[in-house]
Amino acid sequence: MTGSSAVYTSGQVTLREVGLRDGLQLVKEWPDTNAKRDWLDAEHQAGVRHFEIGSFLPAKRFPQFADISDVIQHVVDLGAAHSAALTLNERGVEDAIGSGIDEIVCVVSATEDHSQANMRRSRKEALELVRQACAQRDALAPGKIVNVGIAMAFGCTIAGEVLPGDVLQLAEKAFSAGADMVGLADTIGYAGPAQIEALCREMTRVNTDAPLVIHLHDTRGMGIANAAAALDSGVRILDASLGGLGGCPFAPGATGNIVFEDVVFLCERMGFATNIDVEALNKARLIAEQSMPSETFYGNVSRAGVPKNITWAG
Amino acid sequence: MTGSSAVYTSGQVTLREVGLRDGLQLVKEWPDTNAKRDWLDAEHQAGVRHFEIGSFLPAKRFPQFADISDVIQHVVDLGAAHSAALTLNERGVEDAIGSGIDEIVCVVSATEDHSQANMRRSRKEALELVRQACAQRDALAPGKIVNVGIAMAFGCTIAGEVLPGDVLQLAEKAFSAGADMVGLADTIGYAGPAQIEALCREMTRVNTDAPLVIHLHDTRGMGIANAAAALDSGVRILDASLGGLGGCPFAPGATGNIVFEDVVFLCERMGFATNIDVEALNKARLIAEQSMPSETFYGNVSRAGVPKNITWAG
Repeated sequence: MTGSSAVYTSGQVTLREVGLRDGLQLVKEWPDTNAKRDWLDAEHQAGVRHFEIGSFLPAKRFPQFADISDVIQHVVDLGAAHSAALTLNERGVEDAIGSGIDEIVCVVSATEDHSQANMRRSRKEALELVRQACAQRDALAPGKIVNVGIAMAFGCTIAGEVLPGDVLQLAEKAFSAGADMVGLADTIGYAGPAQIEALCREMTRVNTDAPLVIHLHDTRGMGIANAAAALDSGVRILDASLGGLGGCPFAPGATGNIVFEDVVFLCERMGFATNIDVEALNKARLIAEQSMPSETFYGNVSRAGVPKNITWAG
Repeated sequence: MTGSSAVYTSGQVTLREVGLRDGLQLVKEWPDTNAKRDWLDAEHQAGVRHFEIGSFLPAKRFPQFADISDVIQHVVDLGAAHSAALTLNERGVEDAIGSGIDEIVCVVSATEDHSQANMRRSRKEALELVRQACAQRDALAPGKIVNVGIAMAFGCTIAGEVLPGDVLQLAEKAFSAGADMVGLADTIGYAGPAQIEALCREMTRVNTDAPLVIHLHDTRGMGIANAAAALDSGVRILDASLGGLGGCPFAPGATGNIVFEDVVFLCERMGFATNIDVEALNKARLIAEQSMPSETFYGNVSRAGVPKNITWAG
């Protein structure tokens, strides 16, 4: 465990904005660096502090992340903000270690099939990459957090049903490899609240000290119900994206991540203070929408507003 | 209690399709009688058995419900199907009593302000109308069910916060007036799952024998999470509408009822058999969409489909 306990306060809800990473992964147009800065400024102004801002991937194939160094620097300049980025191979890990990023996100797939399709390596090899990332982090950048996301943790487009035992085993291996925290991803919207609750409760037994992240896609409309189930199960770190940005290569036409604005409303209505001004998020939303006019932005709170005279947790 | 226990099987989940009533309340265009028949046929084919199909209101002001007698007759002809319709005044109650409708839905608002705005009568007067409906039912049509929906049960656009105690008291009065069943409506999407759970659990203490309905709007994206919370609290009857049809006069631009297709998926993933073929609902959706081309149809399961190799409750 490095600095994760300081960044993710135990018992307090943390919402990670993943729109600048997961949200931009499949889009055909994306915000330029200035628009990304404006987006970050507006969300920071609204109270958001945790940003997954890109992937360390070849700029030629993923030009939307070519400005990752500038974006990281902007999060540093913002102050009181935490940056995370995805790595999928050795080169990416090296770049991340040498960068100013606070949190390195690695991915391990719950199924062998998806691991090969997504990363062109086995689960064992993906775990080996986690081990390397942790070793390099220990040697060169001990302040950084390593966060391992388990993709397809609730069901897989290729392999179908996923056994919770397999996910728990992978989580244990990720911790053994040196991970500071683990995330469970319902990459393709297979889960209902019952599945979320069952696995999250099991997970807290694997490593009770480490922060547990839930990463939900709203593919089949269960996203907010699943977020509520995760909160009920003790999970306190949730990924979400502004306007629900983020599609899925395995479900064309499906919606993306759970909507950040709606998750804020959910948390507050469940009694968890977010310290986020949900209506102030509309400014960030406007910036994002203007930079991607052909993308669909989802979400209900942004349309309907916050009801009056409501009990707010924060 | 008349026939409600036979129609709403205790312990089993019942989904009430309210699109042909709540969904058509505010639209500028609506399906003609033939399209309504096709819509009903397709949903019945998919396994749906409970339909709220209109309101007994002046045909001049609500031409979308002018064909209510024909639509009721069609549900009768379908067989193994249950029809319900809304009444808001004495004339409507009389018409309903004389019609072939199986279930008469009355409304009482949780707040005095909304009662006046919505029905131009006080809550006391609304309860008096329930009493009249039940008396007429007893005298003239003992087979019919009287279902009282409590509007704004979780918060009111005009009055703001609503006290659970007020809702419980209204429910008790509705039962005293002769109601067979009561519904709690989050008319404007104020509730989060915590509020749903708290009130539903209290409600089951008011009358443990009577079926309890939850009527949710997805105004702020909490709809499916709230449906999950209601199921967790023991509620087994849920209103929903195909494609989430149904706006709200008190929240312009807001989405309508919770999406029927997504609720089916939720129930099945929570282990509640619905006996509804969610993919067969797409045919009904197509019919509804073609008859109302300018309306927005929501829902995620209809886009993404049902995942493969999934555990289905039914």
